[in-house]
Amino acid sequence: MQKPEMTLPLPSESELAALKSEAAGWFATLRDRIVTALETLEDQAAGPFHPDAPSEAGKFEKTPWQRTDHSGAPGGGGVMAMLKGRVFEKAGVHISTVHGEFAPEFRAQMPGASEDPRFFATGISLIAHPWNPNVPTVHMNTRFVVTTKAWFGGGADLTPVLDRRRNQDDPDTRLFHASLREACDVHAPAADYEKYKAWCEEYFFLPHRKEPRGIGGIFYDYHWTGDPKADLAFTQDVGQAFLKAYPEIVFANLAKDWTEADRLEQQVRRGRYVEFNLLYDRGTIFGLKTGGNVASILSSLPPTVRWP
Amino acid sequence: MQKPEMTLPLPSESELAALKSEAAGWFATLRDRIVTALETLEDQAAGPFHPDAPSEAGKFEKTPWQRTDHSGAPGGGGVMAMLKGRVFEKAGVHISTVHGEFAPEFRAQMPGASEDPRFFATGISLIAHPWNPNVPTVHMNTRFVVTTKAWFGGGADLTPVLDRRRNQDDPDTRLFHASLREACDVHAPAADYEKYKAWCEEYFFLPHRKEPRGIGGIFYDYHWTGDPKADLAFTQDVGQAFLKAYPEIVFANLAKDWTEADRLEQQVRRGRYVEFNLLYDRGTIFGLKTGGNVASILSSLPPTVRWP
Repeated sequence: MQKPEMTLPLPSESELAALKSEAAGWFATLRDRIVTALETLEDQAAGPFHPDAPSEAGKFEKTPWQRTDHSGAPGGGGVMAMLKGRVFEKAGVHISTVHGEFAPEFRAQMPGASEDPRFFATGISLIAHPWNPNVPTVHMNTRFVVTTKAWFGGGADLTPVLDRRRNQDDPDTRLFHASLREACDVHAPAADYEKYKAWCEEYFFLPHRKEPRGIGGIFYDYHWTGDPKADLAFTQDVGQAFLKAYPEIVFANLAKDWTEADRLEQQVRRGRYVEFNLLYDRGTIFGLKTGGNVASILSSLPPTVRWP
Repeated sequence: MQKPEMTLPLPSESELAALKSEAAGWFATLRDRIVTALETLEDQAAGPFHPDAPSEAGKFEKTPWQRTDHSGAPGGGGVMAMLKGRVFEKAGVHISTVHGEFAPEFRAQMPGASEDPRFFATGISLIAHPWNPNVPTVHMNTRFVVTTKAWFGGGADLTPVLDRRRNQDDPDTRLFHASLREACDVHAPAADYEKYKAWCEEYFFLPHRKEPRGIGGIFYDYHWTGDPKADLAFTQDVGQAFLKAYPEIVFANLAKDWTEADRLEQQVRRGRYVEFNLLYDRGTIFGLKTGGNVASILSSLPPTVRWP
């Protein structure tokens, strides 16, 4: 999708300040809820666990970081939270609230930044790589960005790592899609489920392999109706939809039997995930080229991978 | 390095045809010699081998492939040769000879292609990922490219995967550098060792990690003195230098003891290799975007990798 013309008005300075604060607060709240949900899965899972997994339930470890802006000035920061557990081989859920000026080479591609390079962005991003090949990998991120324009963006997508489960008829796929559809439908027509689903399929695609990364989900950007409360509420509902669907999918699969061939297939599929993230993912490439926090950006990469 | 002005003359049509054929023939010969050298290491190694390694000596398996040009016409092809053995967890040595027309978006960046988009390229590329963390990973490739200009390019670089061995004083590093220096010095001043060594250090660098990929080697491109025999001889000597140095380095290290911590360090270091190849390597990105042979391009990716 091309950089859109964004013509709808921004709220007043004071409303915008309140919205930034409310959005950042929501992302921290959502992070806490996700941390609780994943730690609960770690706690309550009865096994059997992978032989290489730790025997104890995993807990998130948080690492705060500070960002220096392109200009050299302080530019906000964030908190990484990483879990290495017995259900999740690796899971990260990160929040950040950053501000500064876009470097000259990035101004043209961000709506509203050619006029004034200052920006503010707050968001959450999550990725989970479970041990059991029956449990899909998942990614979710949502954000609020302000330049001389303002918008919400994000999405969630599911990657079942076994071919036999990576299709549109699998119960996991259906549950995941249904949950995101519901989040969109409440906010229709601004949140256009069919459009955001199609955008996800277009985005999470590996052209060199001619294959999708997973089974899809939603992807949205430049979401701004001019009604900030409604737009934030939609982004909150995307987070809630993730929180409703994914733990249920994990719970349904975490004790299922798998074979060594399944585990190998998982590791190879994770290789495709790496290829996507490093070759095509805008957020990863943009983050690495703009002095983002390397540890949190690359925490999305799977713990163990094979290219046999 | 920017696209250079290349002003030296090409040989006559018939001399150029002979040179293409001679270069392609050399790359096939070098491939055969490398195959023999690595298979000999597989055969003669006495162990102990990694517990997950096959017990038998590995043999290369060859897979020919055909290329369809951007225009839809036949565009040459190549032969992949892959080995999965007990010394080398994965090694690939590929030759290709391709021709066609550069797609419009690539014409500006290739010397001589704006005038006429037709090209010819022949080359060899190799990567080896040994099991034993004491044995460095290596990459080598050399090529001959013809547009309305003609030039040789390539290089070789070494990546010891253990921090304690990845330095300029290690005997492996010294041997590798000495061998490449000798190849260049024979062809000085056209083959400028210091320049090609510095170019390698600049090229094989991960800006987001602020770290070099390995200990260096040489990297050269647009090498053309106007004396085709001398330029081909230099590229042949780079191949010979690789063949002289790397098997000796492997042999010196393949039976050395290693710990589980060393093996983990190797897998993490391989992750950096993946990051470099997918984020920065011109050949990989160019190949994937121009419909190259995905299997051979991505055969450089390590067999087992960790991002813990």
